[in-house]
Amino acid sequence: MSDNEDFLHNEEAIRQDPDNLIKSNDPNHPANLICTLCEQFYHNNWCTGTAGGISIKHSKYDHIYVAPSGVQKEKMKKEDLFVLNHDGSKILRSPKFYKPSDCTPLFKACFNVKNAGAIIHTHSQHAVICSLIFKDEFRISNIENIKAIPSGKTDPVTGKSIALSYFDTLKIPIIENMAHENELVDSFHEVFKKYPHTTALIVRRHGIFVWGPTIEKAKIFNEAIDYLMELAIKMYQLGIPPDCPIGDEQKY
Amino acid sequence: MSDNEDFLHNEEAIRQDPDNLIKSNDPNHPANLICTLCEQFYHNNWCTGTAGGISIKHSKYDHIYVAPSGVQKEKMKKEDLFVLNHDGSKILRSPKFYKPSDCTPLFKACFNVKNAGAIIHTHSQHAVICSLIFKDEFRISNIENIKAIPSGKTDPVTGKSIALSYFDTLKIPIIENMAHENELVDSFHEVFKKYPHTTALIVRRHGIFVWGPTIEKAKIFNEAIDYLMELAIKMYQLGIPPDCPIGDEQKY
Amino acid sequence: MSDNEDFLHNEEAIRQDPDNLIKSNDPNHPANLICTLCEQFYHNNWCTGTAGGISIKHSKYDHIYVAPSGVQKEKMKKEDLFVLNHDGSKILRSPKFYKPSDCTPLFKACFNVKNAGAIIHTHSQHAVICSLIFKDEFRISNIENIKAIPSGKTDPVTGKSIALSYFDTLKIPIIENMAHENELVDSFHEVFKKYPHTTALIVRRHGIFVWGPTIEKAKIFNEAIDYLMELAIKMYQLGIPPDCPIGDEQKY
Amino acid sequence: MSDNEDFLHNEEAIRQDPDNLIKSNDPNHPANLICTLCEQFYHNNWCTGTAGGISIKHSKYDHIYVAPSGVQKEKMKKEDLFVLNHDGSKILRSPKFYKPSDCTPLFKACFNVKNAGAIIHTHSQHAVICSLIFKDEFRISNIENIKAIPSGKTDPVTGKSIALSYFDTLKIPIIENMAHENELVDSFHEVFKKYPHTTALIVRRHGIFVWGPTIEKAKIFNEAIDYLMELAIKMYQLGIPPDCPIGDEQKY
Repeated sequence: MSDNEDFLHNEEAIRQDPDNLIKSNDPNHPANLICTLCEQFYHNNWCTGTAGGISIKHSKYDHIYVAPSGVQKEKMKKEDLFVLNHDGSKILRSPKFYKPSDCTPLFKACFNVKNAGAIIHTHSQHAVICSLIFKDEFRISNIENIKAIPSGKTDPVTGKSIALSYFDTLKIPIIENMAHENELVDSFHEVFKKYPHTTALIVRRHGIFVWGPTIEKAKIFNEAIDYLMELAIKMYQLGIPPDCPIGDEQKY
Repeated sequence: MSDNEDFLHNEEAIRQDPDNLIKSNDPNHPANLICTLCEQFYHNNWCTGTAGGISIKHSKYDHIYVAPSGVQKEKMKKEDLFVLNHDGSKILRSPKFYKPSDCTPLFKACFNVKNAGAIIHTHSQHAVICSLIFKDEFRISNIENIKAIPSGKTDPVTGKSIALSYFDTLKIPIIENMAHENELVDSFHEVFKKYPHTTALIVRRHGIFVWGPTIEKAKIFNEAIDYLMELAIKMYQLGIPPDCPIGDEQKY
Repeated sequence: MSDNEDFLHNEEAIRQDPDNLIKSNDPNHPANLICTLCEQFYHNNWCTGTAGGISIKHSKYDHIYVAPSGVQKEKMKKEDLFVLNHDGSKILRSPKFYKPSDCTPLFKACFNVKNAGAIIHTHSQHAVICSLIFKDEFRISNIENIKAIPSGKTDPVTGKSIALSYFDTLKIPIIENMAHENELVDSFHEVFKKYPHTTALIVRRHGIFVWGPTIEKAKIFNEAIDYLMELAIKMYQLGIPPDCPIGDEQKY
Repeated sequence: MSDNEDFLHNEEAIRQDPDNLIKSNDPNHPANLICTLCEQFYHNNWCTGTAGGISIKHSKYDHIYVAPSGVQKEKMKKEDLFVLNHDGSKILRSPKFYKPSDCTPLFKACFNVKNAGAIIHTHSQHAVICSLIFKDEFRISNIENIKAIPSGKTDPVTGKSIALSYFDTLKIPIIENMAHENELVDSFHEVFKKYPHTTALIVRRHGIFVWGPTIEKAKIFNEAIDYLMELAIKMYQLGIPPDCPIGDEQKY
């Protein structure tokens, strides 16, 4: 096994042995990081019973790593992963025992249309409950953690992404669930048009998809949103609308 | 100690030293896996105070492994296990300090009638609460995780088990608890007749039994059902019937 | 350091070096087990902010081990422990930096009057909340985990302790809190008289004390009772009296 | 790398290589302890999505260690830390990739005005919810854990800090949140005047700041307060005012 990533991701090396794509020892290489994060997410009750998934695009070589369908997320090994080419049109490496996740077309849509570097999909109960108490979009206002989420605007001088402000309202669209995950592709594309700046979407009675330019960002967005959904449910149960103006809490 | 499973499960070897049945070093051998899973389940609040249990049938040699009665599940060692023959009619190996779990006849019923490969029994508070708010059966509809549970139907072409669809209702029967677990055998057999496709049953004010063709499947079913019971309680508390049609949430 | 427990607990050895009392390497020796359990209980939210404590009497030599006052329970080391003689009347070994826990007289009462082998004291929020919703005693009926608690009766043939039955009601007395823990001694003795069979008592707005003939038993009792208090609060919130008869749940 | 702390904190050594300030191997050295605690706090849901932070002043050399802005708290390494001089007026050591936390001016205010040895800042949901159900101050009375918090009074004989009594009311001021954390400095100074004895302040819809003479004390205060806020929310949901007199619970 070699740590030479240039070699491991080289076209000729992949042709000779597709398993080169999963041979890196770097814990931050997608092949290793997907497994670490799936185990962590399992313990958050986000991926029990084989639910949920993660896909990461290698930041240098653009190979796409995807967790397979039906695997216990807390025991997943890098040998279980699929690897696709840069736009997901070709499978470069397959595991022995599994078939590709039904989420693969959804992940591809996020990679290709939203230029995502990683997508996290969980069955978080906070997302499911929010999809039951909110109608078309999840809304929460004036909570510090909102500042972890990008506004979609860019600083004209530095070119850097501008985050939401404490005084903003975070809005995450909710789409209807279908019998099979691949039937959700059209709804994903509609969301991309209607909410061009959103970095997440909730699927009613199912879970949430969160993406970002890197896996680090996607993980931070996902944690912040999950925290905010948990908080919104508590506010709702206390009779405080999660998107009410500051100072209006006492009215409820 | 040898890893030669053929030898360890050989009739002559067992006769000479019944402890051969618990000598495998393979972490997925029933003797080891029961201990790992019991510790994990303890931390889920499913098996505190010696409650709950697991039984696994060896997939090749058909020996049945059972956690004993009264042991702290987070500290259980393979030396504490009972091993029975293929139909549970004979004890092949006993631990020094414990007596067989009162659940043993219930496990045997699942192995022999339902052709189970493993049974998980927890005192999950979600199961106990669901047994208080539901009457004869637990019901939940239109949640993605329902798709982890088998419908009982089989694909006529591939012969594979067909899972419940997102649009289905998961129904798990609830039986009354008795003074002693072995008195539940008759109710188990009634459930097997009335709900031929169920993979689980809830015992009121007690807990849940979940079985499957393998321990991997039983574990996935148990996690998915526990997730769904937890969600159902939250829906109930929000005034949303867990089995209401999609779109009816706003009515409540 | 020696593992010869006979030597370490020998009077002459203790006189020469009281630290012999904490030198055992056996993980089940009280000096080691108190630290392991305190760390575990910390992660249960039972002992945060230096709250709570454990005391264990050595099953053979009768030396009493006590966690000190004011120590972070998740970082406690055996060097931090006090060791007392068999009835707690003499301190045999003191740590450098701490003073004895204010609970010490309460632990002594349980050792001397109730013949306890170990006492667990937690600030479990379940105990505090139960002390707010119950008046003079905590009551819960017809839940499987009640069977983990002794009834106080003894089998006349085997001489073994008989556990509560599923159809029984578990009753745990609640006493009023005082400014200092040592002022609770009188109330402890009143409980011992009024509830001769109880294995636990709740201190209102404070926490719970659970004792047993061994630390294994005390730990099992404490886990079972904590589970039952958690469940009772959930039942109360759903409008179901925790001690209502089976079948009466639907009335509420 | 050397463990000679006198050397590592020596002015000349720092001038030659500022990284000397983070080279100690002692797990209780601020450079190491901040990382350990941030990881622990992450798993408490206090610091997810890069939220929250800790600052510790070295008890002997007075150098101030601060977690940077925007780092994943569960993966933080000592190389990521800023080190400031004794009053925070000068940056002695900077990490490569991060900018100073926006909390830095708030931490400096606590160090310089309150003579703090450490400050813990979390986005605990208990703090956020308490800031929604309480108006100007969080209040809770007659709970044992209140005794972990200092009253602000000092024993005239021993000179030691006197803790709150069980019969006292803990009051923690709540200030309004601003768009940027550094805008909170004025409100911090107002709190210091109006509540000269408080060891914590809640920022509405944001989180909590807790300080103490040492990191051990700040950690204990933070845990006790978080426990009390959690309990207060449960009491509020049960209709029991968290600051009601003992015995008044039954009225609600």
